[in-house]
Amino acid sequence: MNSNKTSLTLLGLGAMGTALAHSWLAAGHPLTVWNRTAARAEPLAAKGATVTATAAEAVAANGLVVVCLLDDASTAEVLAGTDLAGRDLVDLTTGTPAEARTRAEWARSRGARFLSGGIMAVPPMIGAPGAGAYVLYSGSSALFDAHHDTLAVPAGTEYVGADPGSAALHDVALLSAMYGMLAGAAHAFALIRGEDVEPKRFAGLLAGWLTAMTASVHGTAERLVSGDYTGNVVSNLAMQVAGTATLLRTAEEQGVSPELLLPYVGLMKRRLADGHGDEDTTGVIDLLTSRRPSAG
Amino acid sequence: MNSNKTSLTLLGLGAMGTALAHSWLAAGHPLTVWNRTAARAEPLAAKGATVTATAAEAVAANGLVVVCLLDDASTAEVLAGTDLAGRDLVDLTTGTPAEARTRAEWARSRGARFLSGGIMAVPPMIGAPGAGAYVLYSGSSALFDAHHDTLAVPAGTEYVGADPGSAALHDVALLSAMYGMLAGAAHAFALIRGEDVEPKRFAGLLAGWLTAMTASVHGTAERLVSGDYTGNVVSNLAMQVAGTATLLRTAEEQGVSPELLLPYVGLMKRRLADGHGDEDTTGVIDLLTSRRPSAG
Ligand SMILES: NC(=O)c1ccc[n+]([C@@H]2O[C@H](COP(=O)([O-])OP(=O)(O)OC[C@H]3O[C@@H](n4cnc5c(N)ncnc54)[C@H](OP(=O)(O)O)[C@@H]3O)[C@@H](O)[C@H]2O)c1
Ligand SMILES: NC(=O)c1ccc[n+]([C@@H]2O[C@H](COP(=O)([O-])OP(=O)(O)OC[C@H]3O[C@@H](n4cnc5c(N)ncnc54)[C@H](OP(=O)(O)O)[C@@H]3O)[C@@H](O)[C@H]2O)c1
Repeated sequence: MNSNKTSLTLLGLGAMGTALAHSWLAAGHPLTVWNRTAARAEPLAAKGATVTATAAEAVAANGLVVVCLLDDASTAEVLAGTDLAGRDLVDLTTGTPAEARTRAEWARSRGARFLSGGIMAVPPMIGAPGAGAYVLYSGSSALFDAHHDTLAVPAGTEYVGADPGSAALHDVALLSAMYGMLAGAAHAFALIRGEDVEPKRFAGLLAGWLTAMTASVHGTAERLVSGDYTGNVVSNLAMQVAGTATLLRTAEEQGVSPELLLPYVGLMKRRLADGHGDEDTTGVIDLLTSRRPSAG
Repeated sequence: MNSNKTSLTLLGLGAMGTALAHSWLAAGHPLTVWNRTAARAEPLAAKGATVTATAAEAVAANGLVVVCLLDDASTAEVLAGTDLAGRDLVDLTTGTPAEARTRAEWARSRGARFLSGGIMAVPPMIGAPGAGAYVLYSGSSALFDAHHDTLAVPAGTEYVGADPGSAALHDVALLSAMYGMLAGAAHAFALIRGEDVEPKRFAGLLAGWLTAMTASVHGTAERLVSGDYTGNVVSNLAMQVAGTATLLRTAEEQGVSPELLLPYVGLMKRRLADGHGDEDTTGVIDLLTSRRPSAG
């Protein structure tokens, strides 16, 4: 018994739920778990977790209830038969901002405080300090403050606002940006393929270069805030568009499909054609949003 | 007179050429310069550079001749009337690998040793130690070794092989990857736009996340070398493709065009449909290359 550690309930023991469960147990938190496929709970029972036969029993066991299921539809299904009145519900299931907002409203109507989380990690990073894993949280700040110590056990925490959709929005935005980077890296590896270039040495140059270039997002943020996309521009859009011709010709020379480069180059060209050659690339963002751009 | 510093010639005094010239002068290298528009040489003359009336005179002045012009066509035009016999020619003009190879062959036929360079920096980073600027070099290793100390003055150096096209290939590959990352970041900023999210705080999360994710390129290189795309896979392709549905739905919810995400997601889906759900995303690279993938 660790009476000084908050006891909690976890619903969902997939790859991620299992990793979360192990980290809370290892930190001495009394833990009640439930999973649709009961067999997945057995290794946790052996480590001291209480296993319940139904989700309703698991929810009844503790004031703090964490959910980590496949998607929002499974969350709705699992929580349907439970009594959430007075519960602090933390939903770590990945979804869209709108799903999180709807789920928050639903939880409120059932008498629960609600916090939505987006996990920026893969399971092996959970409970491994220094791995850089963190969870984005949004929704009830009272819930977040009350349970911060418990929530901080599996990974770092980053509270991003009262809007329950904000964590999902941040989560999706970061993942989307990552896929852009992976797309760029895939194109780069395709270019060197079949040439006398050692992929591992190239990867070192690529990681160093991309890391250095990540700093550009701070300038982008400043330009979005000020609304002036022409200040402190080192390589202007006109020069950059001219430079992309070399990138596209090289792809052709190397027999690499340009399909991953073309959409961004196309947007740069559109912005240039609209008379913004003295900006940097921030104006591309305006072209992506069909809503009227605001100052923020 | 700094008789212990190698004297050299620089053709081209645009933004980049001017930055290079200043760094060599500041380091005490006797420097001869020429530029089509003569007025751009005046500030350098005031700092001690020798200015010639023609490119031919500038080439005749020194054994080491550096070229930094707009493109390969201007290089051809400028060098046409010069005598390159016995010269060490370093071409820092951006071009494609094929252009560099052709230029190397041409220089060889004129009796010059040839080194091609790709500058991974913007002008303000030149001559600023610690700014992380470097130049990729390929071609004559004898030339590179003979002039390394002089070439290392404006920026770091990275020799990437005897193939004169290799520097351009690396340069283009790194820039292409950067545009992928910028595309991802643009999509991310578009998603948070108009929401109650402070762009500067978001930029901090984004830079940290992307920096952490750059490490993935090492795994990609290892898989390309081994040819096994299924080893040590943490998030397999099937799971990732399922996850991209949330990214695309969120873009729709937020009124953001998915055009920058769709090509990579499409390639992931094609690879999954081809029966590679247990791989990571490395297989996408195979789909980009129309040539037969080799082991390297
Ligand atoms: N794995 C990662 O790298 C990662 C990273 C960040 C975020 N996440 C998020 O974390 C959440 C869980 O991911 P995971 O990796 O643990 O997934 P997983 O291994 O596929 O596990 C899915 C879990 O959901 C349960 N489930 C699915 N449909 C259900 C239903 N209709 N009713 C009851 N239970 C249902 C499964 O129960 P059964 O065992 O009975 O099938 C299992 O516990 C997801 O939202 C995911 O996006 C995962
Ligand atoms: N600036 C950067 O951020 C950057 C970064 C990496 C690499 N680079 C590369 O460095 C090279 C030079 O770039 P830059 O920024 O210095 O460009 P720039 O400022 O536009 O200067 C272009 C230079 O080329 C000369 N030139 C153009 N056409 C010519 C012709 N037909 N005959 C003779 N001279 C001609 C110009 O002479 P005039 O003065 O007479 O016009 C000028 O000296 C380019 O290949 C560029 O891709 C630049």
